[in-house]
Amino acid sequence: MEKGSHNLRLGLLLTATGAHFGSWRLPEARPQDAFTLAHYCDIARIAERGLLDFLFIADTLALYPNKNPRTHGHAPLISHLEPFTLLSALAPVTDHLGLAGSATTTYNHPYHVARILASLDHISGGRAAWNLITSGNPAEAWNFGFKEHPDDVERYERAAEFADVVTGLWDSWSDDAFCFDKSSGLYFDPRGMHVLNHDGPHFKVRGPLNIARSPQGRPVVAQAGSSEPGRALAARTADIIFTAQQTFSGAKSFYDDIKRRVQAVGRHPDQVLVFPGVVPIVATSQGAADAKRMRLDAAFDPALGIESLSVEFGMDMSIYPLDEPLPPDLPSSPKASSRRQLLFEQAMRDNLSLRQLAVKTASLGHWTLCGPADFIADTLQSWFTDGAADGFILMPASQPDGIEDFVNLVVPELQRRGLFRREYESATLRGNLGLAKAPQT
Amino acid sequence: MEKGSHNLRLGLLLTATGAHFGSWRLPEARPQDAFTLAHYCDIARIAERGLLDFLFIADTLALYPNKNPRTHGHAPLISHLEPFTLLSALAPVTDHLGLAGSATTTYNHPYHVARILASLDHISGGRAAWNLITSGNPAEAWNFGFKEHPDDVERYERAAEFADVVTGLWDSWSDDAFCFDKSSGLYFDPRGMHVLNHDGPHFKVRGPLNIARSPQGRPVVAQAGSSEPGRALAARTADIIFTAQQTFSGAKSFYDDIKRRVQAVGRHPDQVLVFPGVVPIVATSQGAADAKRMRLDAAFDPALGIESLSVEFGMDMSIYPLDEPLPPDLPSSPKASSRRQLLFEQAMRDNLSLRQLAVKTASLGHWTLCGPADFIADTLQSWFTDGAADGFILMPASQPDGIEDFVNLVVPELQRRGLFRREYESATLRGNLGLAKAPQT
Repeated sequence: MEKGSHNLRLGLLLTATGAHFGSWRLPEARPQDAFTLAHYCDIARIAERGLLDFLFIADTLALYPNKNPRTHGHAPLISHLEPFTLLSALAPVTDHLGLAGSATTTYNHPYHVARILASLDHISGGRAAWNLITSGNPAEAWNFGFKEHPDDVERYERAAEFADVVTGLWDSWSDDAFCFDKSSGLYFDPRGMHVLNHDGPHFKVRGPLNIARSPQGRPVVAQAGSSEPGRALAARTADIIFTAQQTFSGAKSFYDDIKRRVQAVGRHPDQVLVFPGVVPIVATSQGAADAKRMRLDAAFDPALGIESLSVEFGMDMSIYPLDEPLPPDLPSSPKASSRRQLLFEQAMRDNLSLRQLAVKTASLGHWTLCGPADFIADTLQSWFTDGAADGFILMPASQPDGIEDFVNLVVPELQRRGLFRREYESATLRGNLGLAKAPQT
Repeated sequence: MEKGSHNLRLGLLLTATGAHFGSWRLPEARPQDAFTLAHYCDIARIAERGLLDFLFIADTLALYPNKNPRTHGHAPLISHLEPFTLLSALAPVTDHLGLAGSATTTYNHPYHVARILASLDHISGGRAAWNLITSGNPAEAWNFGFKEHPDDVERYERAAEFADVVTGLWDSWSDDAFCFDKSSGLYFDPRGMHVLNHDGPHFKVRGPLNIARSPQGRPVVAQAGSSEPGRALAARTADIIFTAQQTFSGAKSFYDDIKRRVQAVGRHPDQVLVFPGVVPIVATSQGAADAKRMRLDAAFDPALGIESLSVEFGMDMSIYPLDEPLPPDLPSSPKASSRRQLLFEQAMRDNLSLRQLAVKTASLGHWTLCGPADFIADTLQSWFTDGAADGFILMPASQPDGIEDFVNLVVPELQRRGLFRREYESATLRGNLGLAKAPQT
């Protein structure tokens, strides 16, 4: 694996008050800014000051269902701005920051998604990325006319065809098709127009896309599926891969598996970048960082975590005592989601009580790094250098102080070690990530 | 009809180089800016300097089909940025300008449209508007998996149900449902959540929308249908209505019909505003304005117009001699579109030759006002005062000089006459248009 010494990549998960579900209840938090553009502009500017590669917006198309009157209305992450309107609004207030948004392949049509992404790529001068997801929230089905959520296999079949249609539509025009030749009156050259004529089991899409080829050729494609069909699709179609990992060995094994799959389908392993998610809680000392974390955990209602564990495990978890180790015979099954497996393994490995596991759900079970800058930098460096990561998705526990601390404290440390850029290399996201521009069609 | 003396409204159709299809070939035109955000930012800032109510982006989801090798690639209006990414990007560079975009009800799902509009409304602080359209471009069907474009009746039935779902989803939350109560841990109050449970022939949508109620309560709804089902739907659901009118009497009759229909469904006629489109060509003298118009017409290839007439009339129009009056027995039928009827009437009324009619298509047959500021102001004033318009959609023949001339020359004249605002009345589009905020649900 060839790697430049300075090219660790960093993305930022954009949230209103932080990735920790207790964050909005901290005294200094401003949850009422969740729907305020200026708040996200502030975060984006901090991220760009820190030379981050991109920010990233997760998404779902429904409220998560909750029939428990004790916790209904208590979960903060149920409602936010639509990713691509928000990313478009952030384009004019930033210059280099990549803009990545999730759009599901389960309840969308590829023509819309291809066009919105190409449009954002034009608007931002080549900084757009699409996080290709299949819907994980079964309640989305009810908002789109379906009684039941399709299963994994069906969702990934549709996703694979969806990805092909979107990339095909992005190739609708050669780079110079729009010639604007005033003397001949030729606005576009029909020889540069490629009609897709896709005819598959899920989609029939003629094309072309009614927008010129965008600055990156194709916007960057991100994916996060860790299941078997998710990995297979990502190896074939993704430029960057997000993953939730708790341990170096797990991350290393995921990384190696992805790079093997990428090579097996004939792509260069450097052209597919793996980004584990990390929840950084940074302060000037270990004690101060631990205190931050304790404040966050204390602001989180364990009943919310038990509710979410019950959904993950498909059973009422409140039957277990709150402060005793969970039994080793917690139900697991080969059909369990990768997120459920992760939680299960963590509970067994660390001999957790229900309360302790519940609090883990406050940051969705993501890997948390709590400490001073050199500790955070050491850990990120070892994962990066020892082949478990090409970069990281930062999911600050609280915002905007979380990204501010990371940019002020950790970024300079990574730069001192020669791991991270001192200025942006390129005007486009592909350029900054070291990904080739999509070839001319 | 009660009208304040100063409340003529003005919207601006956003185009790359102008609404006249010859505009991009003028020597000073910059058609290569069609995909450049900065260009649209410039136009939006001029519009806001002129205190315009809103700008408006038309849309289609396919290239217009063209099998004629003589004209294929010559039509400029086939491809542009996606409306809601562009409008979102214009939000942070403007403060008061309304942001209106078209989204079709024929090839979209209401959950997406409701969410994007609510999101833009949050992002812009209450300046979003949705132009509800049914698709007029039959080629869209092929991009969305259909062999054939649905007929008028089916499209409008779907559109009516679509409108109900969207407005129902906008009412998902009471204004104060997101209470962010840190002490109780209640992020939103479930009592302020309204589950739509829509179950109709075209859509089954459970809701709620996963975004808080937006600043306007409901974004402004615009419509442009002039057909019988279009007018019926607009009277019931639109806040503003766009219309293509060529004559005062036609405009007056449309205006009266709409206001009658609005009252018949129990709405106040002042709460539905009628905006005829107008193509202004403004200069400091009549001679200079005429010269501008002649330059534009000369830059337009009549073959393009003949092609578009052939599509409109459903027959090969090139069989008629170019420079003789068209025969009075041009095919018409009760099923013809309102645009086709308009062209037919114009050709008969003005005894036009094929070339003359072809050149009219260069601004899509819209009403053109060519002259100095006082002539333009006189005409707009008489339509406004005599009950044929509540405002106008400006479709400058060339851009950005067209809106610059209008703002510099005509706006001050309208202000001197007490017809137009000297400052924005409100921070929201509804406020500036004099429309009530949607009632709390």
